[in-house]
Amino acid sequence: MGKQSAIIGGGVIGAGWAARFLLMGWDVKIFDMDPEAHRKINEVLENARRSLPGLYNVKLPDEGSINFCDTIENAVRGAEWIQESVPERLPLKHKVYHEILKFADKNAIIASSTSGYKPSELNGGIQSQSRVVVAHPFNPVYLLPLIELVPAVDASKPMISRAQKILSEIGMYPLLLRKEIDAHIADRFLEAVWREALWLIKDDIATTEEIDDAIRFGFGLRWAQMGLFETYRIAGGEAGMRHFIEQFGPCLSWPWTKLMDVPELTPDLIDKIAGQSDAQSDKFSIRELERIRDNNLVGILRSLKDQNWGAGAHLRNLDRLLSNNDYNFQAPIETLSRAIPLDWVDYNGHMNEARYLQAFGDATDKFMELIGCDSSYINSGSSYFTAETHIRHLDEVKAGSLIRIFTQCLSGKGKKLHLFHTMMSNERVLATGEHILIHVSLETRRSSMPSKSVAAVLSQISIAHSKLPIPMGAGAGIGKR
Amino acid sequence: MGKQSAIIGGGVIGAGWAARFLLMGWDVKIFDMDPEAHRKINEVLENARRSLPGLYNVKLPDEGSINFCDTIENAVRGAEWIQESVPERLPLKHKVYHEILKFADKNAIIASSTSGYKPSELNGGIQSQSRVVVAHPFNPVYLLPLIELVPAVDASKPMISRAQKILSEIGMYPLLLRKEIDAHIADRFLEAVWREALWLIKDDIATTEEIDDAIRFGFGLRWAQMGLFETYRIAGGEAGMRHFIEQFGPCLSWPWTKLMDVPELTPDLIDKIAGQSDAQSDKFSIRELERIRDNNLVGILRSLKDQNWGAGAHLRNLDRLLSNNDYNFQAPIETLSRAIPLDWVDYNGHMNEARYLQAFGDATDKFMELIGCDSSYINSGSSYFTAETHIRHLDEVKAGSLIRIFTQCLSGKGKKLHLFHTMMSNERVLATGEHILIHVSLETRRSSMPSKSVAAVLSQISIAHSKLPIPMGAGAGIGKR
Repeated sequence: MGKQSAIIGGGVIGAGWAARFLLMGWDVKIFDMDPEAHRKINEVLENARRSLPGLYNVKLPDEGSINFCDTIENAVRGAEWIQESVPERLPLKHKVYHEILKFADKNAIIASSTSGYKPSELNGGIQSQSRVVVAHPFNPVYLLPLIELVPAVDASKPMISRAQKILSEIGMYPLLLRKEIDAHIADRFLEAVWREALWLIKDDIATTEEIDDAIRFGFGLRWAQMGLFETYRIAGGEAGMRHFIEQFGPCLSWPWTKLMDVPELTPDLIDKIAGQSDAQSDKFSIRELERIRDNNLVGILRSLKDQNWGAGAHLRNLDRLLSNNDYNFQAPIETLSRAIPLDWVDYNGHMNEARYLQAFGDATDKFMELIGCDSSYINSGSSYFTAETHIRHLDEVKAGSLIRIFTQCLSGKGKKLHLFHTMMSNERVLATGEHILIHVSLETRRSSMPSKSVAAVLSQISIAHSKLPIPMGAGAGIGKR
Repeated sequence: MGKQSAIIGGGVIGAGWAARFLLMGWDVKIFDMDPEAHRKINEVLENARRSLPGLYNVKLPDEGSINFCDTIENAVRGAEWIQESVPERLPLKHKVYHEILKFADKNAIIASSTSGYKPSELNGGIQSQSRVVVAHPFNPVYLLPLIELVPAVDASKPMISRAQKILSEIGMYPLLLRKEIDAHIADRFLEAVWREALWLIKDDIATTEEIDDAIRFGFGLRWAQMGLFETYRIAGGEAGMRHFIEQFGPCLSWPWTKLMDVPELTPDLIDKIAGQSDAQSDKFSIRELERIRDNNLVGILRSLKDQNWGAGAHLRNLDRLLSNNDYNFQAPIETLSRAIPLDWVDYNGHMNEARYLQAFGDATDKFMELIGCDSSYINSGSSYFTAETHIRHLDEVKAGSLIRIFTQCLSGKGKKLHLFHTMMSNERVLATGEHILIHVSLETRRSSMPSKSVAAVLSQISIAHSKLPIPMGAGAGIGKR
């Protein structure tokens, strides 16, 4: 049996947690009294299955099992991680923890998704040492990595380390808070902006759509990759942060914002906001909006991954953790095994033409790594460049499908390397990619001989592969079958 | 002579404006008394040249001319757009407008980059009708599209329309405000968050880096694509915005935030912030941070463009506006002319292997459009699928370089289409891409005959192209020269 987690409360947040654990190979037991819980959780799971696996460049573990339980007892027994995501009412939470603590394993981590309560408040009603930690996620939980992790003041250090480790293993980015505080960090900002936004709508300065545009066409783009301070550090220029504060600091006491007061949520104001929101967004259903959002987030996260920055750089950690390092050189080598990400497909969901070459290029990169042409080799001034490519597109494949590439070395002597990739989805051959690469000096940009050690590994592989049958389609001219 | 703009004040904001105008083909005259202005503006321009042109799928107009002027008079004479970006001191701004108004054309648009002042304040000191509008941009001005456009209450309607049109033509997204208000919209939010962030640092709840992570690993990713309200609409689920407000609304009166008060910027607090910012970011120089930021923004904007959403969808408008529609079928057809975007290159700045095929794929798409296999044809149930591709990589090319693709139709009879693309950078041949495409029914996913009109255009092109010499490398098998 694999690792086991318990999800107490299966709303949109609890379901997001369930999806993360499941898709990372954990077994999940869910307790939720809502008769609709099953359907709702499956909808979130469906969204997660189409978007999360493709974020990574390696195949995720096989999905765990999911079970719905009638009692908290059945859900939490044997679980290593217990995540509470019930509504934000303290007495209800206390009641739930009371039940959890009766049946939880001694070492189980008990975490709350609360966006506002402090651990001292959560633990206040419990006859036990401060077991409950805050692990506050952000919707969609299956895509956004941030977790605000807030342990109780007397929480055990090894438990905190274990919580950080588990969260990292399921692809989260745990931000350990130094002190407990109402609403942690992020929600204090969200609260401040929300309050100001309500005034802008009440006073007819802007509509919901105009406010959204003022965010997503401007500073929202900045905040997806650097936050507040690194952005302002740049704004300070060579003179730095100190200069920025001197320039911008005094404005803070100007009477710009209305934040000192809370607008009353009268029925009129609620009508106004709901009406504007309909005008802005009701051309899409919530399900459509969720999928648009997920497509966007996958694209943004993967573009940051390409740049090895922030939330994108973070994705690379799991790639490293999960990558296969057991290669057999006697057969075609499995150089790629991954889900097709949402940003690789066209509008009808099929993998785009150019992405076939991207996958073959990734497979070539892995082959390079295996023969010792890795980043340190490249930094030392040599590499292989692709001179020629021949792709045969044989079948289509959809977003989310698992693809694998097997690479056969047709020849690898001297400056020239001849590779043949076969891309499969289960037993279907999707495409073949045949490549001629030339070893080059990165200084002269001209062909050169590979190092002795690279040549030796290549020779070993090409001798082994010369005993394999020549793959169908190899060496063919374009248009000739 | 082309369109002419005047930039009054050439700091980081003014220089960003200058870059936008120049790269969109306007002539620019700059007035700035800083003896370093020349160097500083050139640094911003260099950043803009490497990042902006590649955002678009078509070549931008040829760059305009840039001139530094000794007086405001020389800068503003003949200018259609005059952008003031001097420091945020009202008496200084009034003095500058006084001078501008003496020499500006009667119809020139006079706009201020002010982040805080209202048009009534800007116009207050001026002996003239309310000429000055606010056009508030966001750093980096050459990449972020948002402009908060705030006209004076008595501004002329045609002037406002003209301002919107010009801003759109230089790739901006003008958000027209309904009423003037201190700090417009976005800076009210930034101010609220900044104030709260100062408290968090002062009270040792979080460091600058932790605050940045709390933003960019979580809600910052949401805000890059949807704003506050569309995000919360999804959070409300099927029950909608009204339900969300009922749930979240009451929290607003909880004592979560400290926004009612302004932290005093003591030397100690400034030291603390500057020290934390150094610990977080001083492994990079400001120039390096700027380039990292621009790489990230280009990646994010282009991923949103792929999804046709928000700031990315907006980029497509300029593609349409600038696209060439004058094609000559008697010679190889220019099916692509664009700058290489930052997200198409590897760590040493050369275009990545797979992006060659992406460019060839885009060229094929344009060819398809020209023969009538456009989106409505595809919606009616037919398309061409690529069956085979042969790429010869002949030379390297760097980010920002202009590439062009010329497409020769080698045969186009029946279900089969044979295209040969040649990719050039100036006179250098970078690569060739040869493709066999098959016409298919999108219902059966099997080969089928093209419509009569598509077949007719194809026949016209292939007859004309049969008189051209067969391009070098066509029909070759891989590895054979």
